[in-house]
Amino acid sequence: MDRLKNVSPFIVMDIIKRTKELDNVIHFEVGQPDLPPSKNVKKALEHVAESLDFPYTESLGIKPLREKIAEYYKKFYNIDVPIERILVTPGTSGAFLIAYAITLNSKEKIALTDPSYPCYKNFSYILDIAPEFIPVDSTTNYEMRVCHLKNISGIKTVQISSPSNPIGNIYSNNTLKELIEYCDDKGINFISDEIYHGLTYTDDKVSTALQFSENAIVINGFSKYFCMPGIRLGWMVLPQHLVRKAEVLMQNLFISASSISQEIGVCAFDYDYLEKCRGIFKERRDFLYSELSKLFKIDVVPEGAFYIWVDVSDYTNDSFEFAKELLENIQVAVTPGVDFGKNNTNRYIRFAYTRNIEHMKEGINRIAQYLKNRK
Amino acid sequence: MDRLKNVSPFIVMDIIKRTKELDNVIHFEVGQPDLPPSKNVKKALEHVAESLDFPYTESLGIKPLREKIAEYYKKFYNIDVPIERILVTPGTSGAFLIAYAITLNSKEKIALTDPSYPCYKNFSYILDIAPEFIPVDSTTNYEMRVCHLKNISGIKTVQISSPSNPIGNIYSNNTLKELIEYCDDKGINFISDEIYHGLTYTDDKVSTALQFSENAIVINGFSKYFCMPGIRLGWMVLPQHLVRKAEVLMQNLFISASSISQEIGVCAFDYDYLEKCRGIFKERRDFLYSELSKLFKIDVVPEGAFYIWVDVSDYTNDSFEFAKELLENIQVAVTPGVDFGKNNTNRYIRFAYTRNIEHMKEGINRIAQYLKNRK
Repeated sequence: MDRLKNVSPFIVMDIIKRTKELDNVIHFEVGQPDLPPSKNVKKALEHVAESLDFPYTESLGIKPLREKIAEYYKKFYNIDVPIERILVTPGTSGAFLIAYAITLNSKEKIALTDPSYPCYKNFSYILDIAPEFIPVDSTTNYEMRVCHLKNISGIKTVQISSPSNPIGNIYSNNTLKELIEYCDDKGINFISDEIYHGLTYTDDKVSTALQFSENAIVINGFSKYFCMPGIRLGWMVLPQHLVRKAEVLMQNLFISASSISQEIGVCAFDYDYLEKCRGIFKERRDFLYSELSKLFKIDVVPEGAFYIWVDVSDYTNDSFEFAKELLENIQVAVTPGVDFGKNNTNRYIRFAYTRNIEHMKEGINRIAQYLKNRK
Repeated sequence: MDRLKNVSPFIVMDIIKRTKELDNVIHFEVGQPDLPPSKNVKKALEHVAESLDFPYTESLGIKPLREKIAEYYKKFYNIDVPIERILVTPGTSGAFLIAYAITLNSKEKIALTDPSYPCYKNFSYILDIAPEFIPVDSTTNYEMRVCHLKNISGIKTVQISSPSNPIGNIYSNNTLKELIEYCDDKGINFISDEIYHGLTYTDDKVSTALQFSENAIVINGFSKYFCMPGIRLGWMVLPQHLVRKAEVLMQNLFISASSISQEIGVCAFDYDYLEKCRGIFKERRDFLYSELSKLFKIDVVPEGAFYIWVDVSDYTNDSFEFAKELLENIQVAVTPGVDFGKNNTNRYIRFAYTRNIEHMKEGINRIAQYLKNRK
């Protein structure tokens, strides 16, 4: 069995590569914030430059950073996470690799929603794990539910994300609680991708999986809310009995996360500033959702992250080709749904609101004009 | 089959953790340079601090860095490596994961020497690959030879390192050439870990595997010669037909290497400075080899990297316990041979000369005194 047979290219990375060869591109494809991180990061970097010292760190990560992360859980969710259960990783990417490797042996099953973040399934294939795809749509708010799991035997690990990429939906507290309690009850590992926490635009209180179970594996990082995707810094909160296993894998797979990234990560928890950024993303969400609604069907209101999942089936039954058309003809970059799975994804396109409203306006104008002429 | 059953802790990382709880420790355990990188790195970091922009980069890595890496091969080995065949990775760790995953499916065999860098085998176990250990010792200068491979069927990939960790031996050009030609002939993938290139103290010209075959996968990085272990930056040179596979894995596993690390990597190729560092390590090698030879047997002259592989069997048949003794009783940290394999490794200890001569002198004094009293 060819390990790589089912591994798909991360299409958006190829699109980004192509946009660099074109002029005057409007960017709706990029899953990364355009806003800078807190100015405190600047000081931290200057300090690192002064010392010119770049050692490996402890594999678990430097203590000041793990303390900041623990404080974050106290502040946002009022829960106590001992720093002993926090492992700092090279991006959430590194965290997924570890989480999958410590919970799943070769051929064992992980439940993923389809659509979902494409790398989940590819991590699985690379580790010879069997992804079990659960098709979700607007009828369940794109959530995985207990009823889905009951129909499948042998699930060893469940992976969800909320707010999700590519949908932007947020799991209701009830669904999340039920799902986690079901997994706990059945001895299923539960992995919660919370990288878009902080970027939520609803009045409801958003929960971390840790509020419902100490057995949940929670993954988060500095790429989205903290506005530093390129520093490749993430973390995981582990149940106590998995900490040593994860640490040993961290030692072997990565030695440690970048010392520079860790140093500046400590200074990135500038909540006043981050709240301002959230406000900006909310405005952009409001704008883009309103504008896209005039052109396309959108079957779920995006409440978090910075994505809108748009149904383009009035114009095409091949959203990959449609995305190519937009890029090559009017230099508007979007991500085709097929990057995120096979469940009806040919009908959808993901728009990211990671550029300012002026930029997005120009994109909307180009698309509106193009669709008019195309019809 | 439990994926993690055979994965060993990276013992030296646990030792480093323990040294942080002790006072006045002499460090022979650390496999990282204590020298700072080129001062040019400082300017690069200040520039990054100024821009406060941390985007994902292209998965292959930023072009200026890949150009610098290509120049490096021209300068040191007078060979032309097109930048299209260079992939920038999160440390050599990331490169190994990719190299193993693209050349080996589940259950397939990789040939490793025993002893060797412990993570090789652990990467294999994590990916459900079967390591085939080739016991090596001073009779072949700790080199894997063609004669070793001829006795084993089904090898799909060969992994060597030169200069090696933990031995410090360098493959002779003849051995390397024969080995690579044999692998090429049999269609075996050849992975050459060249992370210690540049840190060599012999008059002979050291070769890169690329001089003998374009099919070799060469792995290198910024942790040793360039004195920046903590930035987690490495690279691989791939044969053309594996580039896209490696790129797709890079996209999925890591997205990209740290943008900060890449920016400062560009400025680290300061050869005048690096040559000075090499001189310092050579002096230290001369000192430590001479001093340790008075206390222990050493069966191979260390010609590269910054390690000496010391036979302590006159004092113990359990070097793990012996290392613990030295750490707990006289606060001298060393790495026990068992971190590197099972082939007689209970007789050996690895000393790193990654601290200055003054520091090492104190360590040698403590050990000499301790051995005298212990006998």
